[in-house]
Amino acid sequence: MKGGLVSESGAVLLSERRPTPVSEGPEAVVAAIRDFIGHLADSGDGNPAGVGLVVPGLVSEDTALYAANLGWSDVPATAFTPLDVPVLLGHDVRTGGLAESVLGAGRGVSDFLFLPIGTGIAGAMILHGEPYGGASGWGGEIGHIPVFPDGEQCACGQFGCLETYASAASVGRRYSQRSGLEGIRAEQVVASDDPVAIEVWDEAVEALSLALATYTLLLDPTMIVLGGGLAEAGPALFDPVRTRLVKRLAFRAAPPLHPAALGVDAGMLGASLLGWRAAGRPELGPGWVLDVRSQPLVS
Amino acid sequence: MKGGLVSESGAVLLSERRPTPVSEGPEAVVAAIRDFIGHLADSGDGNPAGVGLVVPGLVSEDTALYAANLGWSDVPATAFTPLDVPVLLGHDVRTGGLAESVLGAGRGVSDFLFLPIGTGIAGAMILHGEPYGGASGWGGEIGHIPVFPDGEQCACGQFGCLETYASAASVGRRYSQRSGLEGIRAEQVVASDDPVAIEVWDEAVEALSLALATYTLLLDPTMIVLGGGLAEAGPALFDPVRTRLVKRLAFRAAPPLHPAALGVDAGMLGASLLGWRAAGRPELGPGWVLDVRSQPLVS
Repeated sequence: MKGGLVSESGAVLLSERRPTPVSEGPEAVVAAIRDFIGHLADSGDGNPAGVGLVVPGLVSEDTALYAANLGWSDVPATAFTPLDVPVLLGHDVRTGGLAESVLGAGRGVSDFLFLPIGTGIAGAMILHGEPYGGASGWGGEIGHIPVFPDGEQCACGQFGCLETYASAASVGRRYSQRSGLEGIRAEQVVASDDPVAIEVWDEAVEALSLALATYTLLLDPTMIVLGGGLAEAGPALFDPVRTRLVKRLAFRAAPPLHPAALGVDAGMLGASLLGWRAAGRPELGPGWVLDVRSQPLVS
Repeated sequence: MKGGLVSESGAVLLSERRPTPVSEGPEAVVAAIRDFIGHLADSGDGNPAGVGLVVPGLVSEDTALYAANLGWSDVPATAFTPLDVPVLLGHDVRTGGLAESVLGAGRGVSDFLFLPIGTGIAGAMILHGEPYGGASGWGGEIGHIPVFPDGEQCACGQFGCLETYASAASVGRRYSQRSGLEGIRAEQVVASDDPVAIEVWDEAVEALSLALATYTLLLDPTMIVLGGGLAEAGPALFDPVRTRLVKRLAFRAAPPLHPAALGVDAGMLGASLLGWRAAGRPELGPGWVLDVRSQPLVS
């Protein structure tokens, strides 16, 4: 887990990383977060004004409702901090989307999709300037829409999901299955001119362009922001996806595709925005001038 | 075109129908609407407090931006009425969704999909209690998402669109193409035990369940409200679509499917809500007790 202190003017005063003791059980993880937040607060100049915390799974502003991998169920926000300051919780992808919206590629854009493509795929739908999580917080599962109805079975149990073709993990796995070569990473597949690699990447691009066409037709975004590890592929990703997205759409223009601006720091910066919102300062963020890095603050 | 007078308490005091003089050109249609609104106002007890007008194509609250079939481009709302009262314009499907949300199947539900299935298919996404039209008003085109990526070409030019498999017009057309029998309506295909009819209807149901699975995974609605002519098929539509939607989803529950409550009056009732909003009475609507009819007020 990563944490930091972010000032009123957006300066990252401190950023640190600690292991998450998942194997020690749900309560140990909560205790480790509480301890980490206490340590970060002690390192600063007086108590922080508020705490923003990004957690996995299903989450509301004041409760970590459910996280299968951590064994959490209905953990109140106050359990995560030893401080007597307001706390706001956030969903991982949606908080990254909030950061891209306020500080990154979506600055000044009220309606767009933030799609990080990493080990898995989930999207943050920014609508009217805020991340939208659906009726119960399960929205944004674009990684599991059925792009190929008769396609391969996904680890989730469904068939033909975007994620099972186009996540970084899937691109590597699918190449290994067809080539017999183990341990090949997605970046290597993207860069290779081996016909099997070209085929696997082509199917990933096709799956992505179908999902983005669907998103565009339904939600009419101003732009689409691609992030995560696979977006590092640059033109090898953006160019063919853009071409096929345009081709899939007949009666409307395709929205522009842009790379995410905040990289792996999106989550922490989004959490700092939540922390300032918790502190009653929702106006902070838009005026920040960030030194956006290509390398993570905390690796 | 249809119009009416709706009181503060939701009573439909008058409803009438007039032909739309499309062949006489864009300005003639605007003039006919102006004349119709003047006539409706004269028939009431004093000037109405406001006017709500539902128009086809791309629309904002104060301008009919673009309507290909009528030749409209940037017609201001005030051009449509001879009265000196506030006017609000609305998108056709989204205004129907607003009516279902305030007065119909979605009463008290803040996040759902209203999907009328008629000659064409477009959806109204109700998010946070209001219809959402996307960044530029082109949202909700669920009829044109590519459910079968290698599927048939749609009249829109794209391939594998939901609408080209599952609209009432498409069900009739696809049956005729395969059977050689002309002029068969969708309702007849749905009710038939002819193997060709069963196949065509099966493909429509599959296309719908794919589109609804995609919508559910992306937008996490509380419910899905099906309307339009095809929803009259009742269990022959709802049962198989529900079964397949459940089957398509592995890690989340399917939202319930409900029939629309307002039928063909949804548009006029939605327009009356817009009219009252224009008049500064946005609180009207939720308290109305409607005598919901199975037959249209104006046929």
